[in-house]
Amino acid sequence: VFFAVVFIFPRCQCPTHSHTYSQGNTSMAVSNIRYGAGVTKEVGMDLQNMGAKNVCLMTDKNLSKLPPVQVAMDSLVKNGIPFTVYDNVRVEPTDASFMEAIEFAQKGAFDAYVAVGGGSTMDTCKAANLYASSPHSDFLDYVSAPIGKGKPVSVPLKPLIAVPTTSGTGSETTGVAIFDYEHLKVKIGITSRAIKPTLGLIDPLHTLHMPARVVANSGFDVLCHALESYTTLPYHLRSPCPSNPITRPAYQGSNPISDIWAIHALRIVAKYLKRAVRNPDDLEARSHMHLASAFAGIGFGNAGVHLCHGMSYPISGLVKTYKAKDYNVDHPLNSFVICRSPHFPHGLSVVLTSPAVFTFTAQMFPERHLETAEILGADTRTARIQDAGLVLAETLRKFLFDLDVDDGLAAVGYSKADIPALVKGTLPQERVTKLAPRPQSEEDLAALFEASMKLY
Amino acid sequence: VFFAVVFIFPRCQCPTHSHTYSQGNTSMAVSNIRYGAGVTKEVGMDLQNMGAKNVCLMTDKNLSKLPPVQVAMDSLVKNGIPFTVYDNVRVEPTDASFMEAIEFAQKGAFDAYVAVGGGSTMDTCKAANLYASSPHSDFLDYVSAPIGKGKPVSVPLKPLIAVPTTSGTGSETTGVAIFDYEHLKVKIGITSRAIKPTLGLIDPLHTLHMPARVVANSGFDVLCHALESYTTLPYHLRSPCPSNPITRPAYQGSNPISDIWAIHALRIVAKYLKRAVRNPDDLEARSHMHLASAFAGIGFGNAGVHLCHGMSYPISGLVKTYKAKDYNVDHPLNSFVICRSPHFPHGLSVVLTSPAVFTFTAQMFPERHLETAEILGADTRTARIQDAGLVLAETLRKFLFDLDVDDGLAAVGYSKADIPALVKGTLPQERVTKLAPRPQSEEDLAALFEASMKLY
Repeated sequence: VFFAVVFIFPRCQCPTHSHTYSQGNTSMAVSNIRYGAGVTKEVGMDLQNMGAKNVCLMTDKNLSKLPPVQVAMDSLVKNGIPFTVYDNVRVEPTDASFMEAIEFAQKGAFDAYVAVGGGSTMDTCKAANLYASSPHSDFLDYVSAPIGKGKPVSVPLKPLIAVPTTSGTGSETTGVAIFDYEHLKVKIGITSRAIKPTLGLIDPLHTLHMPARVVANSGFDVLCHALESYTTLPYHLRSPCPSNPITRPAYQGSNPISDIWAIHALRIVAKYLKRAVRNPDDLEARSHMHLASAFAGIGFGNAGVHLCHGMSYPISGLVKTYKAKDYNVDHPLNSFVICRSPHFPHGLSVVLTSPAVFTFTAQMFPERHLETAEILGADTRTARIQDAGLVLAETLRKFLFDLDVDDGLAAVGYSKADIPALVKGTLPQERVTKLAPRPQSEEDLAALFEASMKLY
Repeated sequence: VFFAVVFIFPRCQCPTHSHTYSQGNTSMAVSNIRYGAGVTKEVGMDLQNMGAKNVCLMTDKNLSKLPPVQVAMDSLVKNGIPFTVYDNVRVEPTDASFMEAIEFAQKGAFDAYVAVGGGSTMDTCKAANLYASSPHSDFLDYVSAPIGKGKPVSVPLKPLIAVPTTSGTGSETTGVAIFDYEHLKVKIGITSRAIKPTLGLIDPLHTLHMPARVVANSGFDVLCHALESYTTLPYHLRSPCPSNPITRPAYQGSNPISDIWAIHALRIVAKYLKRAVRNPDDLEARSHMHLASAFAGIGFGNAGVHLCHGMSYPISGLVKTYKAKDYNVDHPLNSFVICRSPHFPHGLSVVLTSPAVFTFTAQMFPERHLETAEILGADTRTARIQDAGLVLAETLRKFLFDLDVDDGLAAVGYSKADIPALVKGTLPQERVTKLAPRPQSEEDLAALFEASMKLY
């Protein structure tokens, strides 16, 4: 069914690469995870087993006094692991905040890292580990093209244990570190399998006190990781196709392994996200969403994402007036979660365009679009294949309405007049947008933003 | 649904471990795979990227002159990687043949390994890498209890790239190395996440010349890896439960990650095994089965297997008169595949008891048994839950009949008089049999062998 449409792509003729993907890599970075209520307590033993003697624990200022970090520190102390805390991680990191963490890491000469926090903390820690291990590199060396040089990483990194405290980013399993490049006012990233954490400790106890909107918004990130990675350009249709494995990108297009993770994560979102949002004490639902975040991470970390993510960066970057819907603040611990997302919620910025995006992309792989609509609850038995995009978009709209999502870009402060700026902000995101199953002109992007102004 | 039955187990009270599993490990061994027709050609580049300067290429005598090894050697030469070939791997390795390979590895002081072959070659290479990296260890130190000491591996190993040439073992993704311990006439193993290959190169070109029976028998191994790992005791019900992650077994019981791989591999077996057996040129079917072997390996390598495997070792070990069904030898390359399995085919020894085993185990997790029956083609809409075992057994019998499997243990030379010896040969396999969802007495085992005498 796929092959009805492949001929419009510049199909790679390299006989090997055209059928090659790797789940992991050739430089031994991994997606190992351990899951369980309380696994954070084991981090000291893990570091002891690795022989670590000088550990850097990274977190942010708000989290540093709260249970997830306290539990990790207690475990380090109990196991006699010498460590230094770096709690200056910036939420929504920038090149400047990355540099500060890198300098700290270089001076500390650490032999292992622990990152406790959300995507900002894990991403900062990955960058610190990378550049401290590669002291002669220029910062742009490893930043993705076209802004950076996108050099492959060949230096060995130190072990990094990631302890996520949100259920969305999946950064504990990916080789991606995202930051704001302030000079150009654009969100870009470092993407290399080499910076994947050595181990992710998926501890659902850290998710019990997340307020409903944080659960919803981070869940939307998982939803889009799954939907986008499942519909990226398949790995054998991507170009260019470097002959040396080490120069192949981590985002290599959809493939038989990433597909498994994407679909499985999507099933969990369909089954548990609403429950997880509704009830902070629903340990089962929140545990499953914490796993789904990691699962979707393994999927998109190998396959990539495309338009929802590519278009999300200007949406969150250019917003002026948005005030997040009232968070449930009846629990004293909630404040730390809220403080960590002072900006426009990433998951919301990603999901707002999803009905428009999948309406646009469905003509390429309509079966996959229908299949995901069915998982999200649509009755697709009588659906026509040419309506796949509409069916998925309608299913998403219903799902987002049930979860009380703002009614489109207009509801978060955008108007038609902003569209040129939004399009302009999307163009540098070719790291991901080129993985969309359908190429997009600037007019296409403008139409997608316009179609996302109102959802319901 | 699960929890209706848990109370008869000695449930572990350790609060952390009772909810903990790890997909991978804390010592950074991985299940990275790269898939594609021709990926073997890339092995030299991978080794160059790892900085290898003194590589050991392991294989067996028959394979050493044939294409899979030649392609790998050409790639090493082309990339300027100095290497030494060890082609003395014994098919169905023993402690003596392991020791010989270990001595070779110790003398060679290699900095990386490449294993090209089936399970025997990959397992021998894992053992050589392990003991060469741990020169002061006694051979029994790392062998599984009760025969060995089952010590955790804390030494760092060298990179090992595995290139499987059969589609059954999954050894390219597991931390398991199986051998005959001649002194006690028993098949046992070394099981540690630390010995997992660094990278598996899944090259379907190596599968095109496998004769039909080899495809069928190795496919049965995949089938049972999937069925057994999906029905092992769940990870949180296993005991003992060591508090330190490094002492937890690789075979940790079924868990949310191994389940994904088991089910996915089973779906591939259901869809492609018959086609792969029927037509040696069906690259699509054989490619999918080659992937399924790796996928099921990731599943059972983390969850374990149970009775079909535990009972298979005496079946293959005690057989006297069996002559494998005629192999299709019309292709000159086939001879090398046949030569590599001079003994009773492992996959056949595993699958012959499967209808009896799953009839026996189904009362514990009947939903899982019904689910797998449905994947294998049964209409379960009107099936009663208490008939789950019978439904799966009947589905398996039909599947095996279609694939022309010998009609039970009697058809391969066993009679009732052999049952005590078969039971006795199963008892030392507690490494796996203790993972069965239902405990077994010697009488139970005897009844399972008896029920497996005739299949149809």
